[in-house]
Amino acid sequence: MTGPRYTRLAQSLPSTVPFVGPETQERAMGHPFKARLGANENIFGPSPKAIAALTSADPDIWMYGDPESHDLRHALAAFHDVDPANIVVGEGIDGLLGYLARLIVEDGDAVVTSDGAYPTFNYHVAGFGGVLHKVPYAQDHEDIGALLAKAAEVDAKLVYLANPDNPMGSHHRGADIVAALDAIPDGCLLVLDEAYVELAPEGTQAEYDIEDPRVIRMRTFSKAYGMAGARVGYAMGARDLITSFDKIRNHFGMNRSAQGAALAALSDQAWLADTCHKVALSRDAIAKIAQDNGLTALPSATNFVAIDRGRDGPYAKSILDGLVARGIFVRMPFVAPQNRCIRVSCGPAEEMTKFADALPQVLAALD
Amino acid sequence: MTGPRYTRLAQSLPSTVPFVGPETQERAMGHPFKARLGANENIFGPSPKAIAALTSADPDIWMYGDPESHDLRHALAAFHDVDPANIVVGEGIDGLLGYLARLIVEDGDAVVTSDGAYPTFNYHVAGFGGVLHKVPYAQDHEDIGALLAKAAEVDAKLVYLANPDNPMGSHHRGADIVAALDAIPDGCLLVLDEAYVELAPEGTQAEYDIEDPRVIRMRTFSKAYGMAGARVGYAMGARDLITSFDKIRNHFGMNRSAQGAALAALSDQAWLADTCHKVALSRDAIAKIAQDNGLTALPSATNFVAIDRGRDGPYAKSILDGLVARGIFVRMPFVAPQNRCIRVSCGPAEEMTKFADALPQVLAALD
Repeated sequence: MTGPRYTRLAQSLPSTVPFVGPETQERAMGHPFKARLGANENIFGPSPKAIAALTSADPDIWMYGDPESHDLRHALAAFHDVDPANIVVGEGIDGLLGYLARLIVEDGDAVVTSDGAYPTFNYHVAGFGGVLHKVPYAQDHEDIGALLAKAAEVDAKLVYLANPDNPMGSHHRGADIVAALDAIPDGCLLVLDEAYVELAPEGTQAEYDIEDPRVIRMRTFSKAYGMAGARVGYAMGARDLITSFDKIRNHFGMNRSAQGAALAALSDQAWLADTCHKVALSRDAIAKIAQDNGLTALPSATNFVAIDRGRDGPYAKSILDGLVARGIFVRMPFVAPQNRCIRVSCGPAEEMTKFADALPQVLAALD
Repeated sequence: MTGPRYTRLAQSLPSTVPFVGPETQERAMGHPFKARLGANENIFGPSPKAIAALTSADPDIWMYGDPESHDLRHALAAFHDVDPANIVVGEGIDGLLGYLARLIVEDGDAVVTSDGAYPTFNYHVAGFGGVLHKVPYAQDHEDIGALLAKAAEVDAKLVYLANPDNPMGSHHRGADIVAALDAIPDGCLLVLDEAYVELAPEGTQAEYDIEDPRVIRMRTFSKAYGMAGARVGYAMGARDLITSFDKIRNHFGMNRSAQGAALAALSDQAWLADTCHKVALSRDAIAKIAQDNGLTALPSATNFVAIDRGRDGPYAKSILDGLVARGIFVRMPFVAPQNRCIRVSCGPAEEMTKFADALPQVLAALD
């Protein structure tokens, strides 16, 4: 009586997870967090129209979602002025990154990313046997030139760039990304993760022909639109590439209510603009709290702020642990030198006050 | 300027989908279906407690779901009297079948299923490079003996058995499956798809040690629990196998509201029992409609009924087309000789009346 025969790759993979969820920490602590500022969720929440769409769809949950996500895809196409065939909707950017890795990466294929960038991308690449090559951040920015140079050096099939970046919150101008397109090596695809781009300054979105075969861009309803729990993301790119997702994706994988809620959220751009305004105010509030405590807030184009005390990773970790112990869920970068910072998500004044109350206690206990 | 370099496997895959959704048909027709009886959705709907759970969770959609699906998994463990480590929650059985194929199947690996059984399983196996070997149904039942003999012959890594079966609605006694376990070849895993088992007669569920390394069983909230649009399924098996899913699954892939709704649905076993009763009455109603029109309803252990007119696939297809043209969404088996039938999902009296009204018109037009 023997067990199943796993693939060689599956045997070689670790059973690790990219992130431990806050619920896991809460269960370990035995009490809930007072403020949930660690996962860059949007505490301001989604448009009331999105919530209304959810509620009106609740009794229809007996029906499968439309496997084509037709209505949402067409609305997104109109919004972005591309063809619906240039868009695939999926189970969050995480799900889409997994599909993309599956389409492109096989055993030993080279993939380039920044050291300390999104671990879930790395998880998917490794999960399909890819070999990750990492380049350092430059002044807390992902280093476009170094990424593309490394991609050429290792003959990479994918190169990952988040703009704005997570976990540092930095960004590049869209024009700088467009200028770099010609430096992408032949046969390498730029994965442009724009999860936070709605929250970034004017000019951050790269403007290029959507049929350009060298780039795929990813967007989400999890961040600015405030619907992380719904699992709705989308990728935009050349038709050939987007059509390829249909070869492998879980066609009936989308939650039906989430499809409708995303459509409603997209239609409420006034709410989105208001959210961006609130997030900007919250970034300022976090910066003020940092300053009041002798720390430095890095400039952010996202709904989170990296806070620097100019010391090392273990020290930042001790700040993080102190905050967590006081009921403030935050996270921090994984890799030096970015891990000198902690990362705090934006939120309403009530959350900011809890953070502001806890931080000096934590620092006092450390010093 | 070249495009991405796909894997050899991705290049070889067709861009087909296992099922065309009813919404696609509705868009082509230019009007909605009057009765949605084709996808074995549960038109009786979920427990009001599940809907209430969705509605109460709607404002919380800004939060990611718990990547461990802890509460749901623990409730399921208590319900099935197994350890939580024996259960993995995923994005429907479809999602879990995809993960399983990824763990087990690589280029050229043999996999066995019944000819005409669940196409989404085949889609996932082919999607990871597996080679499908199909055995015929025997008297409209999946043929356990033939499946296991074929698995031994081709050294299969997976053998798929749905109990009850889709699309025929037939079933085996659980004891017969347990008796067959010792005939599973070494290194072959039985994928026991029990999507419809709650609707089946007493004794259909196989009783065996959950740590048995030869079987993985799959369950869903899409059918009897009436939550197809939520995308919640789970797999139960030996810890080693279940833990392996953590190597590759989309950890944050679960819709947060759906997790809570599944928990509420599970807690309302009275509703489930009532649904099973209503489904049984609807099966009888479909059988009566079939009989009134000179057709034969096959015995069903599910929430759908295969209806036989004892002719061939093209003839059954003409019945299906006639029903679709009259606004009745139904489907039919893909493969001979099962494709002599059409397949009609159970539903409330109103839906049954629409079907009863349309069927004689369709048959009259054909004869």
